[in-house]
Amino acid sequence: MARVVWAMRTLKLTLAYDGTRFVGWQRQAAGESIQGLLESAMARLEGRSVTVHGAGRTDAGVHARGQVASAEVTFDHDPATVARALNSQLPEDVRVLEVVEAAEGFHARFSARSKTYAYRIRISEVADPFDRAYAWHVRSPLDLEAMRRAAALLIGTHDFAAFQSAGTEVRTTVRTIHRSEVGHEPGLITYEIAGDGFLRHMVRAIVGTLVEIGRGRWPSQTMADVLASGARTGAGPTAPACGLFLVRVDYY
Amino acid sequence: MARVVWAMRTLKLTLAYDGTRFVGWQRQAAGESIQGLLESAMARLEGRSVTVHGAGRTDAGVHARGQVASAEVTFDHDPATVARALNSQLPEDVRVLEVVEAAEGFHARFSARSKTYAYRIRISEVADPFDRAYAWHVRSPLDLEAMRRAAALLIGTHDFAAFQSAGTEVRTTVRTIHRSEVGHEPGLITYEIAGDGFLRHMVRAIVGTLVEIGRGRWPSQTMADVLASGARTGAGPTAPACGLFLVRVDYY
Repeated sequence: MARVVWAMRTLKLTLAYDGTRFVGWQRQAAGESIQGLLESAMARLEGRSVTVHGAGRTDAGVHARGQVASAEVTFDHDPATVARALNSQLPEDVRVLEVVEAAEGFHARFSARSKTYAYRIRISEVADPFDRAYAWHVRSPLDLEAMRRAAALLIGTHDFAAFQSAGTEVRTTVRTIHRSEVGHEPGLITYEIAGDGFLRHMVRAIVGTLVEIGRGRWPSQTMADVLASGARTGAGPTAPACGLFLVRVDYY
Repeated sequence: MARVVWAMRTLKLTLAYDGTRFVGWQRQAAGESIQGLLESAMARLEGRSVTVHGAGRTDAGVHARGQVASAEVTFDHDPATVARALNSQLPEDVRVLEVVEAAEGFHARFSARSKTYAYRIRISEVADPFDRAYAWHVRSPLDLEAMRRAAALLIGTHDFAAFQSAGTEVRTTVRTIHRSEVGHEPGLITYEIAGDGFLRHMVRAIVGTLVEIGRGRWPSQTMADVLASGARTGAGPTAPACGLFLVRVDYY
């Protein structure tokens, strides 16, 4: 009996999405996920189910400007056609920006060298109606210099256990951060952080701590103390999901 | 019998709103309007119905960063308290930015000297999911210089009948435009127009014409020809509502 051998290929997808109405990246029992939508769209091209792996498992309400996903498929449409076909099936709040051919064995999460997240804080007495789903609205002005000093303390290799949500299981809570910067323009503070990996809610717990420092409730040094303590109770509150964006993922 | 005389005062409100889910500024038989929401919120402070007049009657899907409204009321809360009270009742996509005391007889529409609108055009192969409700997505690059030349032809006092939607009744279709500028940053073209008044769909018909010129289908001079002809059929299509913002209103 003849055996048909399907040639497997790995695709790398770059995505942007407005996370507002989703349960998050990851497929779940109830609610719409970005992974679920992509897998459905991909399955229509493949003629059978396809698993799509994402570089970062963004939570409900978290956005992406440069999420990366990978999938192994056998169909032979060229990458530009795949991008168009996926976009024609996806809702407007999820867009495939690019599809490229990846090397065999490429995996969006395991092959990632670095991820960059950005967090937007809108500073104004009255909330901006256009930023209600894309920024944390903070009424009081924040001490930018104190936040900058605190942010810089995160650069390097540290145990980030204090900035991890309870109930998550990971092999190690040690991560290396190579960028941690506070920027600003009128009415807006932006925090950018890049590192080799992030624990669950880590960026949002860091931002919550930065804002406590910016408010003058804690000195900048608290960031280092919390880090050293390893205790989640020492860090600030988890900042709202809506201000967070997965900006880019870099690979070896 | 004693007569209580209520002191009337006029308030001037500056508003920002995301027009996406509204039927427009104006109260209508069905659907939620910004005017309707404001009048309800105001009525709760006043204890009886209040009419709120807006400077520009923005259509469904059109946004505002600086709409101005006026209302005559008798309650005596100070302006800052009124702003907070209104915001606490309004949904998040409508915000009162400022409330000030206005002179007797001030009317947001009739007292306006000039209105400024901005229109955003997103130029990219794939649509930006964050701009899907805040810009017109155009795939092909546009000739910026041709658009600039055409935009400049609108400055001055002209009969804008050709840029008016059918079925509207106005005393005169002559308007004075003192600013008409095409700006750009990477992936985004912004058109700003300021004038003493605008006909129904006028800015969107002008933008539709500018885009036809930007696409190279018509020369810049077409803008002047259409203006002179007075015929709506000569102008470009009406650009989508979502790209349009009422930016500011100036008074004498």
